[in-house]
Amino acid sequence: MREQVIINDVGPRDGLQNQGQVLSVTERLQLIKAIRASGLDHIEVGSFVSPKAVPAMAGTGSVFAGLAQVGAGHYSTLIPNMRGYELARDAGVKTVVMVLYGSEGMARKNVNMSREQADEVTEAILLQAQGDGIAVIATIGVAFGCPFDGPVDPGLVADVAGKFLGLGANRFVLADTIAAANPLQVRELTQRLVTEHGASRLGCHFHDTRAMGLANVFAAIESGIRYFDASIAGLGGCPFATGAGGNVATEDVVMMLEQMGFITGINLDALMVASDLAQQLTGTAPGGRSKAWLKPWLARQSAACAD
Amino acid sequence: MREQVIINDVGPRDGLQNQGQVLSVTERLQLIKAIRASGLDHIEVGSFVSPKAVPAMAGTGSVFAGLAQVGAGHYSTLIPNMRGYELARDAGVKTVVMVLYGSEGMARKNVNMSREQADEVTEAILLQAQGDGIAVIATIGVAFGCPFDGPVDPGLVADVAGKFLGLGANRFVLADTIAAANPLQVRELTQRLVTEHGASRLGCHFHDTRAMGLANVFAAIESGIRYFDASIAGLGGCPFATGAGGNVATEDVVMMLEQMGFITGINLDALMVASDLAQQLTGTAPGGRSKAWLKPWLARQSAACAD
Repeated sequence: MREQVIINDVGPRDGLQNQGQVLSVTERLQLIKAIRASGLDHIEVGSFVSPKAVPAMAGTGSVFAGLAQVGAGHYSTLIPNMRGYELARDAGVKTVVMVLYGSEGMARKNVNMSREQADEVTEAILLQAQGDGIAVIATIGVAFGCPFDGPVDPGLVADVAGKFLGLGANRFVLADTIAAANPLQVRELTQRLVTEHGASRLGCHFHDTRAMGLANVFAAIESGIRYFDASIAGLGGCPFATGAGGNVATEDVVMMLEQMGFITGINLDALMVASDLAQQLTGTAPGGRSKAWLKPWLARQSAACAD
Repeated sequence: MREQVIINDVGPRDGLQNQGQVLSVTERLQLIKAIRASGLDHIEVGSFVSPKAVPAMAGTGSVFAGLAQVGAGHYSTLIPNMRGYELARDAGVKTVVMVLYGSEGMARKNVNMSREQADEVTEAILLQAQGDGIAVIATIGVAFGCPFDGPVDPGLVADVAGKFLGLGANRFVLADTIAAANPLQVRELTQRLVTEHGASRLGCHFHDTRAMGLANVFAAIESGIRYFDASIAGLGGCPFATGAGGNVATEDVVMMLEQMGFITGINLDALMVASDLAQQLTGTAPGGRSKAWLKPWLARQSAACAD
């Protein structure tokens, strides 16, 4: 029996936020609509952060309001604090994404808090959200390595995972924010977490900056992980290495999973349309690295079907 | 204890042969010298094929003669038939690479023989080489999938491996000639072969056309494979998809292996010099996909050492 894997497209949030071009609300909705049209139904549509700090995410409330025209789906938004949570809740968001940290350095740099303070903020919001009937995805940034503090202790990550899964977080996602992970490390940490908590509430988020994106996805698949963040057209650069790739591209991940016999429920032809649009709208999205192969291959497949 | 992995750079053969630019013997030696200077000491230096059929490989005898100035190493050349074998032997080659086929279609297309005829030619040369004290690497092309015949039966590949390892081939290499392999497939086939024959005489050769190059290397590593072909700067395109990547880049593979704690004996700084040279000489080599990250990282490492 073919197993299912969930792909959560973070392009409209993580992707757009990490590149220069600021898209209009209409353009952001256009992109989300194209992604959703491929069958991909888990999408991170934006974040409720200060528009001053992150201009690309201004107007996320309007994007959320516009989702009615896109159709049903599992839409989430990122929130950095209680204020963001309240804005998201008032906008009708049903799933919020919170960020925890694998290192002191990144917590300080990103939200000017200690790691423990960030934990406390997330815990308070988690309790509030449970009362409000809103789902919480807890993502731990720099889960494998930090640009400021170096390698991250897997024991610490396992402790944070245990704590938030214990508190009832709907999902706990290991994010390799700066592409520090190698597949051996991924296999070891994911194996440990799957053994301790089962795989159903776990997920992974990889970047392809060092060309190991798909190797890391495969390593996590081997451990039983069945939920992955990915970004349409690889949207989102790497702030720590100019010219280097950012998020692992949705089309690359979907292609590999489908080739390995997993079900993603995503149509690759339609995903190419969304990927082209992401490249067109931003001018910065590199496009999945398999795209040069994928497009002619898909064309041949449909030609064969038409015969 | 850190384990060793052998990297065999096929750029000067597989790489150069699959791109437009024809390098002079002097340039080919320059490239080999730069690769060797990184500590990488397994190199496929060329092939003894008809210069009419493959102009980029004309003068391989002279390249081989020039290796004296490069220094000691495990230098191999590819040969398609007994005539090529004799030329290689007379040129003083100590290791020849022979190509077997996972499909009828590719055998016909490449050497205008049936799969079995190609097996017979290789068997005859293997016996001759054993008499002459020359090592033989038997590489099976399209080991995972063929552009003409589709998916390749793993049982057939296992049979061919068993036959040639039984005959005393020094190494048997699974080549994913057209980047048809996914990592699940790689893990299954390599696990089977390692169980049957041990890992010491096995090897893998992957292409990165579909972005799964490093994922496939990792899958093979998990099975115990410790010998990989790779191509400096990803030299060598894919004849079946214009614009798509070719061989997995040596620098990407070495970086991943070193990051996972394996010993390759290769200096990444020196490898960057060789990679730059490959790009400069050919104008076509894409460069390892991790290079945009790798170069500034290496620069920071040396700066830190100098502090």
